[in-house]
Amino acid sequence: MARMMKAAVVREFGKPLTIEEVDIPEPAPEQILVKYEATGVCHTDLHAANGDWPVKPKPPFIPGHEGVGYVAKVGAKVKRVKEGDRVGVPWLHTACRCCSYCNTGWETLCAEQQNTGYSVNGTFAEYGLADPAFVGHLPASLEFAPAAPVLCAGVTVYKGLKEAEVRPGEWVVVSGIGGLGHMAVQYAKAMGMNVVAADIFEDKLALAKKLGADLVVDARKPDAVQTVQKETGGVHGALVTAVSPKAMEQAYGFLRSKGTMALVGLPPGFISLPVFDTVLKRITVRGSIVGTRQDLEEALEFAGEGKVAAHYSMDKIENINAIFERMEQGKIDGRIVLGLGS
Amino acid sequence: MARMMKAAVVREFGKPLTIEEVDIPEPAPEQILVKYEATGVCHTDLHAANGDWPVKPKPPFIPGHEGVGYVAKVGAKVKRVKEGDRVGVPWLHTACRCCSYCNTGWETLCAEQQNTGYSVNGTFAEYGLADPAFVGHLPASLEFAPAAPVLCAGVTVYKGLKEAEVRPGEWVVVSGIGGLGHMAVQYAKAMGMNVVAADIFEDKLALAKKLGADLVVDARKPDAVQTVQKETGGVHGALVTAVSPKAMEQAYGFLRSKGTMALVGLPPGFISLPVFDTVLKRITVRGSIVGTRQDLEEALEFAGEGKVAAHYSMDKIENINAIFERMEQGKIDGRIVLGLGS
Amino acid sequence: MARMMKAAVVREFGKPLTIEEVDIPEPAPEQILVKYEATGVCHTDLHAANGDWPVKPKPPFIPGHEGVGYVAKVGAKVKRVKEGDRVGVPWLHTACRCCSYCNTGWETLCAEQQNTGYSVNGTFAEYGLADPAFVGHLPASLEFAPAAPVLCAGVTVYKGLKEAEVRPGEWVVVSGIGGLGHMAVQYAKAMGMNVVAADIFEDKLALAKKLGADLVVDARKPDAVQTVQKETGGVHGALVTAVSPKAMEQAYGFLRSKGTMALVGLPPGFISLPVFDTVLKRITVRGSIVGTRQDLEEALEFAGEGKVAAHYSMDKIENINAIFERMEQGKIDGRIVLGLGS
Amino acid sequence: MARMMKAAVVREFGKPLTIEEVDIPEPAPEQILVKYEATGVCHTDLHAANGDWPVKPKPPFIPGHEGVGYVAKVGAKVKRVKEGDRVGVPWLHTACRCCSYCNTGWETLCAEQQNTGYSVNGTFAEYGLADPAFVGHLPASLEFAPAAPVLCAGVTVYKGLKEAEVRPGEWVVVSGIGGLGHMAVQYAKAMGMNVVAADIFEDKLALAKKLGADLVVDARKPDAVQTVQKETGGVHGALVTAVSPKAMEQAYGFLRSKGTMALVGLPPGFISLPVFDTVLKRITVRGSIVGTRQDLEEALEFAGEGKVAAHYSMDKIENINAIFERMEQGKIDGRIVLGLGS
Repeated sequence: MARMMKAAVVREFGKPLTIEEVDIPEPAPEQILVKYEATGVCHTDLHAANGDWPVKPKPPFIPGHEGVGYVAKVGAKVKRVKEGDRVGVPWLHTACRCCSYCNTGWETLCAEQQNTGYSVNGTFAEYGLADPAFVGHLPASLEFAPAAPVLCAGVTVYKGLKEAEVRPGEWVVVSGIGGLGHMAVQYAKAMGMNVVAADIFEDKLALAKKLGADLVVDARKPDAVQTVQKETGGVHGALVTAVSPKAMEQAYGFLRSKGTMALVGLPPGFISLPVFDTVLKRITVRGSIVGTRQDLEEALEFAGEGKVAAHYSMDKIENINAIFERMEQGKIDGRIVLGLGS
Repeated sequence: MARMMKAAVVREFGKPLTIEEVDIPEPAPEQILVKYEATGVCHTDLHAANGDWPVKPKPPFIPGHEGVGYVAKVGAKVKRVKEGDRVGVPWLHTACRCCSYCNTGWETLCAEQQNTGYSVNGTFAEYGLADPAFVGHLPASLEFAPAAPVLCAGVTVYKGLKEAEVRPGEWVVVSGIGGLGHMAVQYAKAMGMNVVAADIFEDKLALAKKLGADLVVDARKPDAVQTVQKETGGVHGALVTAVSPKAMEQAYGFLRSKGTMALVGLPPGFISLPVFDTVLKRITVRGSIVGTRQDLEEALEFAGEGKVAAHYSMDKIENINAIFERMEQGKIDGRIVLGLGS
Repeated sequence: MARMMKAAVVREFGKPLTIEEVDIPEPAPEQILVKYEATGVCHTDLHAANGDWPVKPKPPFIPGHEGVGYVAKVGAKVKRVKEGDRVGVPWLHTACRCCSYCNTGWETLCAEQQNTGYSVNGTFAEYGLADPAFVGHLPASLEFAPAAPVLCAGVTVYKGLKEAEVRPGEWVVVSGIGGLGHMAVQYAKAMGMNVVAADIFEDKLALAKKLGADLVVDARKPDAVQTVQKETGGVHGALVTAVSPKAMEQAYGFLRSKGTMALVGLPPGFISLPVFDTVLKRITVRGSIVGTRQDLEEALEFAGEGKVAAHYSMDKIENINAIFERMEQGKIDGRIVLGLGS
Repeated sequence: MARMMKAAVVREFGKPLTIEEVDIPEPAPEQILVKYEATGVCHTDLHAANGDWPVKPKPPFIPGHEGVGYVAKVGAKVKRVKEGDRVGVPWLHTACRCCSYCNTGWETLCAEQQNTGYSVNGTFAEYGLADPAFVGHLPASLEFAPAAPVLCAGVTVYKGLKEAEVRPGEWVVVSGIGGLGHMAVQYAKAMGMNVVAADIFEDKLALAKKLGADLVVDARKPDAVQTVQKETGGVHGALVTAVSPKAMEQAYGFLRSKGTMALVGLPPGFISLPVFDTVLKRITVRGSIVGTRQDLEEALEFAGEGKVAAHYSMDKIENINAIFERMEQGKIDGRIVLGLGS
């Protein structure tokens, strides 16, 4: 086996990543080494590379957390994953496995969690380490490239839809039809929901329509809220993938009484809720963070069964800085996937 | 039977109520007439009398929505309530009984609901009309005066505690130990919760302690949040009865990951939620509005079994304007109950 | 308006129904009169006509509880339904509307309920009375004949699937692909479930496949349970529409740990559960009875959106005795619908 | 440290256990060694020693699964448990930690689980091995002897009560007031439920009354079911700890419509449910197996807070065969706890 690998490395926050030859890491007895075939590029990777958030990663580090590939090596103590398995490495790298959150299927809330491409090296590389208990298992029917975006974008919206507590036959609005939202429309349809898609770009609304949205609404129109209220009687749930506070407020307006709004984006700052309406209409607002291991398995199954397919374009790891630039300018459609295989 | 009765009437918003002799109303075939023995005085009555809210009642009208007494007359079509029954007349006067909310036990969200002491005449009177399907049935063991505050204050906090989704053995914080909060402490204990009481007055904290609070915290102390986090590991739920946005923000800080904050107060304006924390900690914020008929029956049962008892002082309907004044100044402890019987 | 109507009347248990001219009934102030265009024929009607069950109807009476048509007349007190509305009259004719079940959206458990075609006259007639608060509202896109079977068969399996607590993406087995089961397959698919269909007839399995079942299994095969366990890992839920105890036991075997079996059929006698397996695998067995008004509205919406369509053949009310005969012999495919319109 | 320890060993099914000096086991890197101070004796231990169940343990082995004591040694890889910690070792010795059950807080259903005192050596010994991720953590306020019965009897009924889905203020019946039932009465009260206790012995009913039961009923009386139905309106939930099918059937009769019966005992054979009643009354019957790690922590907290206290009598490991004999004859009150400390 090779001893060196190519990786995109953050050496300093806010500076271009460097493409380097670095040592292939050695798995500890409880770890596995994954040979990546592809990785998605997520907005969070850009935040990591810029050191945008309060708790920061420590350069030098390798970002990326939508990595998919083959298990190349297994530590001596690893039991249930073996060489050659097709796996995906998500944001939730590992967790303590014995706190009350880990013990109840909410490991995403574990205070001791490690995050791939953030507190530990990530997937913008030919190889990477993983905790075998936290990887996703790729269905045989799902190729690597389309699997990558499921690892974060897919599972995040799938979980968010669950958290919006919309039952089959009820209405959900997906606000923001970008990398996350275009997958949310498909998950929502596969989950039996009636779907409203809201965005400010016509081509995104057209895409949503094509992906099965029952109603699309131009969020810039002054009567957007009225239209949704009239056509649906108010939605039962809202999934807000758009990161503007304005989009959040509008999504709130789409709700019927007893509706739930799930937030999955991470815009800086605050969201303002009108107390009177929230109380009188019994509105629920809930944050939702990626998804658990079980959510990930389920999200992958939907993709494996062909019910959900990410729109993505392939690119090369050498172009990562240009990709980040386009991302900052909001110029990316769907998802970028980096090919890493031979 | 008498034909005239005493009532406190709002003739003009913001002006003192007048104590008048008015006609005793005649029940329609589907209605009942209740001879009130007592009524609680709620902050909402003050808002009604002042015309504070966007949708206003139409003077002249009789406020009040915590009325308890005997059924004095039943309309020709009334089947399941009879003369002499001991009942309570709550805020939710009637609803359409066939919308999706009414059909699923959420009649409190019915768009066509009528509200006692607001859109229809209320309980600051010797007699009043009621819809027999919406009255509460008083347990034989519960006297009139202590029953009155259950009709709104009691059921509101009981429902709010349910909506906070705190299981027995888990921690809840009750923020604000006034007319609502002091009952919330008791309901929470009777529901098996561990209770933190937060307030800014020492005597209210002392009362909370006496009523069973496991931990009390002075909300003015700069380390209030830290204390609660340390002693409880963060509460599972928060019930905010205090109507200041500041109290709401502090209550948010008491929560552990996956915690739920239920709002039952109606301060004007907005509550601001930090998006980052809400998402990463999977926080839920939910409005809760009074309680359904089923909630009311349950709330009354707890009181009837002696598990919950309102602190109240008796007063006379003639003093309603002075009571409102003290209420505006925040000078009322527990609840005021007006004696209306002979 | 006409004063007489045609109806199929049970004059004596176990004897052929007579086709008679009877008075068109007059609605009470709270009732409506429905001019039926069609009615489904359900196995329960046969039980009613035979007086099979412990609590019996009182001859003479008109059976039938899947009636659909136009509102022909409204009582003086009726508010929210008007002449010309397209409605459906279900098994749950009316209920007390103020017990704890009625107040919490479980009116199907009301002890004072009346049942259409059983304790009150039913839908095997050109006209019939109904409680406007308990009728279903037919979507404009749904014609009368295909709507009829939704009124009982459809809503019963839809509710049963809800009660089986299977989430989108999980596996459910529908055991018995007859009048109920063939609709259950469609509802389950529309609700996002993965579906196994089990039956002992090849043509029924072929139908299930055509309706979207992901896996079909011949219930007579000795390895049926093994096959389902292998292909699905054990199903998360089972809906048993077959009325044989043997089918129930087999359905139990299809379950994975933590699975739920919902029973909607009414075979006489008992079902035996192995205690050891039930405890160690945390199995849930639950009875499910028709559906509430909300369930009915939802079930109709699925049909109105074209997601579910009953297989039925039209017949005439004059043939009711022959239809019952075929029903007793198990010779009916899908559902029989009687045309009643002009 | 000593190298040998005293233990009660099953050498042959159905034969008396032998008290032996055996090697103190050495913990693997991921394990801990616990020095037991006490252990409860459970009916399951008797079944293990007799080889009563289909899947049998392999003699020689040490039974027991309610062991409490100090951590005496920690393996090299153990992180979150340290020497001197006070822990309890339950039935669920370890599980795979990566199947869908383990990942969702249902590790009690893991197909690869190991069981203490059954598939691995148990707690009838001075020392024993444990998986640190599966031990319970004893509250500082809870002494060893009273903690022991919580490890199995306590957590089993606590979980069973959760699974009966009875909310605070609702009625639950505890059927069988023995080692499990007398703890169930206390847990149910601490969880805010109204409690009916049913048993066939007067002293057990007297005990239940003393422990807080709101109503006690002699299960032998022919009007037992009628009495419970009359006094409570039918219970919302039933927890059946009695292992006779007759007790299960009677408990079923106590239920109101929409009630749930949770089974925690393991009598051989089958339970028969009447299909008609189960469907028409929407009854739920559910097996419940011990409790998860989270359930155990919660069950221990209730005990640590003094809300629940097992009735037990101390005995010596040397008397284990006599204890088993009395157990077989149903002569044990509450729980036997073996003192193991110095």
